[in-house]
Amino acid sequence: MSDATLPPQVSEDSQAVAGGGLLDRRLFLRQSLGLGSLAFLGQEALAAEFDRPAWMMKPGQALSNYGQPSPHEKEAIRWISANAAAPGNGVSWTPLHKLAGTVTPSGLHFERHHNGVPLVDPAQHRLLVHGLVKNPIFLDMDKLVRYPMVSRFWFIECGGNSNTGWHQEPTQAAAGNLHGLVSCSEWTGVPLSIVLEEAGLEPEARWLIAEGADAAAMHVSIPVEKALDDVILAVYQNGEAIRPENGYPLRLVVPGWEGVTHVKWLRRLEAADQPAMARNETAKYTELQPNGLARQFTYIMECKSLITHPSPGHHLQGPGLYSISGLAWSGRGKIKTVEVSADGGKSWAQAELQEPVQAKSFTRFRIPWRWDGGHTVLISRAVDEAGGTQPERGKLVAERGRNGYFHYNAQVAWAVAQDGSLSHVYA
Amino acid sequence: MSDATLPPQVSEDSQAVAGGGLLDRRLFLRQSLGLGSLAFLGQEALAAEFDRPAWMMKPGQALSNYGQPSPHEKEAIRWISANAAAPGNGVSWTPLHKLAGTVTPSGLHFERHHNGVPLVDPAQHRLLVHGLVKNPIFLDMDKLVRYPMVSRFWFIECGGNSNTGWHQEPTQAAAGNLHGLVSCSEWTGVPLSIVLEEAGLEPEARWLIAEGADAAAMHVSIPVEKALDDVILAVYQNGEAIRPENGYPLRLVVPGWEGVTHVKWLRRLEAADQPAMARNETAKYTELQPNGLARQFTYIMECKSLITHPSPGHHLQGPGLYSISGLAWSGRGKIKTVEVSADGGKSWAQAELQEPVQAKSFTRFRIPWRWDGGHTVLISRAVDEAGGTQPERGKLVAERGRNGYFHYNAQVAWAVAQDGSLSHVYA
Repeated sequence: MSDATLPPQVSEDSQAVAGGGLLDRRLFLRQSLGLGSLAFLGQEALAAEFDRPAWMMKPGQALSNYGQPSPHEKEAIRWISANAAAPGNGVSWTPLHKLAGTVTPSGLHFERHHNGVPLVDPAQHRLLVHGLVKNPIFLDMDKLVRYPMVSRFWFIECGGNSNTGWHQEPTQAAAGNLHGLVSCSEWTGVPLSIVLEEAGLEPEARWLIAEGADAAAMHVSIPVEKALDDVILAVYQNGEAIRPENGYPLRLVVPGWEGVTHVKWLRRLEAADQPAMARNETAKYTELQPNGLARQFTYIMECKSLITHPSPGHHLQGPGLYSISGLAWSGRGKIKTVEVSADGGKSWAQAELQEPVQAKSFTRFRIPWRWDGGHTVLISRAVDEAGGTQPERGKLVAERGRNGYFHYNAQVAWAVAQDGSLSHVYA
Repeated sequence: MSDATLPPQVSEDSQAVAGGGLLDRRLFLRQSLGLGSLAFLGQEALAAEFDRPAWMMKPGQALSNYGQPSPHEKEAIRWISANAAAPGNGVSWTPLHKLAGTVTPSGLHFERHHNGVPLVDPAQHRLLVHGLVKNPIFLDMDKLVRYPMVSRFWFIECGGNSNTGWHQEPTQAAAGNLHGLVSCSEWTGVPLSIVLEEAGLEPEARWLIAEGADAAAMHVSIPVEKALDDVILAVYQNGEAIRPENGYPLRLVVPGWEGVTHVKWLRRLEAADQPAMARNETAKYTELQPNGLARQFTYIMECKSLITHPSPGHHLQGPGLYSISGLAWSGRGKIKTVEVSADGGKSWAQAELQEPVQAKSFTRFRIPWRWDGGHTVLISRAVDEAGGTQPERGKLVAERGRNGYFHYNAQVAWAVAQDGSLSHVYA
């Protein structure tokens, strides 16, 4: 074993990169964090203080067939808003403010159901591919999994995510409860292009009508061009069979496009020469413009970012060093840069992006920050590889008007108060 | 929307790349799979056959705070082998034969506990860094998470994984029950190097003794060189707080090294000039050689691979096209290639590796295969970027003798019978 080599020393003077205490993203905080040093204690005093806790004094719990979170993590749950008369109609949000990394645990993936979660028996489930095709296909799950598969980390975001941003006043809630209709999983499944090629699309086929096996028979229309690009028939999520509330046993995953297109419990794909004009592409999931007309088939989820740590509900422990962390994503490809401001937008510094940065996936960003204990405002803004950006809220509202509901992607700002609490503000 | 563009046609004649029916890894199976075509049915007949299933005829289940797997997936569980007199002492295996992709769901991460799973209260948990350091450090979890973090996909493998391979006869069990003491997660935590630098290692510090807060006070010795390289103090696993059985609230993650070094419920790091010579680095987790001497501190998990689909317990549906899929990993870095044989090792073809290939992480490999319905043997072998390979079993046994128990990484072979069943064989 060779000698231990310490990382090179970095001068603290060179750390500042923007106002409000933002530090160079490549720096460690080590020199000045000093949060836990007990150098003033002798080591005997330390050892005496460091008694064995109660749980070391008795055998622990037995092994288990399927593990669950700690009982101390009861707040890391999906927050549910459902129709009291129809509890299967509603949404639940991913608690992004409780999570780290880039994967969303499957048990915390956001939900949007129109008539509840069907408990599908995979032995009875079938996928029908029909309509304008030369060879209609009727597949059971055992046959489907014989096709070659791919695995990709992709986010799914509801078209209505973050829509309290259209409200006149900033809604006070945790980051996940405002923006948690987005989650990111490793999806594994069969490229739809393979199955469509086997079916043989007729030349006049321009759309695929995808239908789920829920009691709402939820269905939407997908252009054939996208279906032949990167859409998959997903069977696995984060390594295991898809969870019931995410479409077990089969989900159409449509990378980068709004959640309503990712049809759960997929049972039918009908090739057609026109869209279905279904309820969820006419009455809903359309965008009313200031002129009274609505935009339809606005599939792509635009570039977006969000500081998850710190965020409302967290509490800073006093002046000193912190690590600001958050998520960025774009339906147009990879995230290129994320900038953070710690002075309400007056100055910006580039955050570190966690590698590997993957297209249409969550990208975790981080930057060190020295809080001086005063009032300030934290903001993030992302840029994607297609040049997509996050507008300031005022600009988005000016462009889209106050009838907006879907596809809100403005910059998000958190105010830090002197007591270390955080709140939602319109910067 | 432009015209739909179909992928280029590929001649079936050019598909074979090795014996036993292996096909070029870049090919789709579309032309010849034809598993589900109902072209012989008229579309009216199809529609009549495709009645709505029972679960479409009533509202589904309500939304939930924390989702669980489908009740139809009861076999996708950890298989437990524990001490009847001390149920917290044992192991449980990840069901690799039921999983796909590269992430292991946290609830299915393998377990190895020596005295059960302590239910640690994070509000009371502390990490002490002491011994040969200038500034002893005593951190609570609130302070620890203020340090900058990194997120990495890394496997953890028990040093005793796959050890039935040393038996004279091949053990008949599912792939996960033979080789599932390995799992892969996205781990997020604080680089240990940052904390050690703040503590200030004394020049004579060569080892870190890491101790967990379980009733066994499990502890091992880690060379300082590794501790300053890529080890992290992990707080999150697959996006959420680490599960209790994986070390909640704090685990030492030691990438690429045997599982016993990844100390769970980490409470103490003592810098020392020599190793602790603890039970689990002397009596256990050492390797007895043919000459009667034992190798000690054999930390690195060598290059390994395994076909998970198909594997024992699966049943082929008859001659035709299948997708062979499996996992490869190495403690020395990235997987460079995986080759598959479908004729018992007489010929080999290169499998497709799922991007992004990450160091010290699971890599999913896949290759299409046309089964002719006859008896054959499937084998995989991996090579890592450091040049590490997987030996044939006979060679490994000849080198290490029959006293072997830990660090078994020989090639794994599955025999396919004419009835489509699979069994474990020594090829």
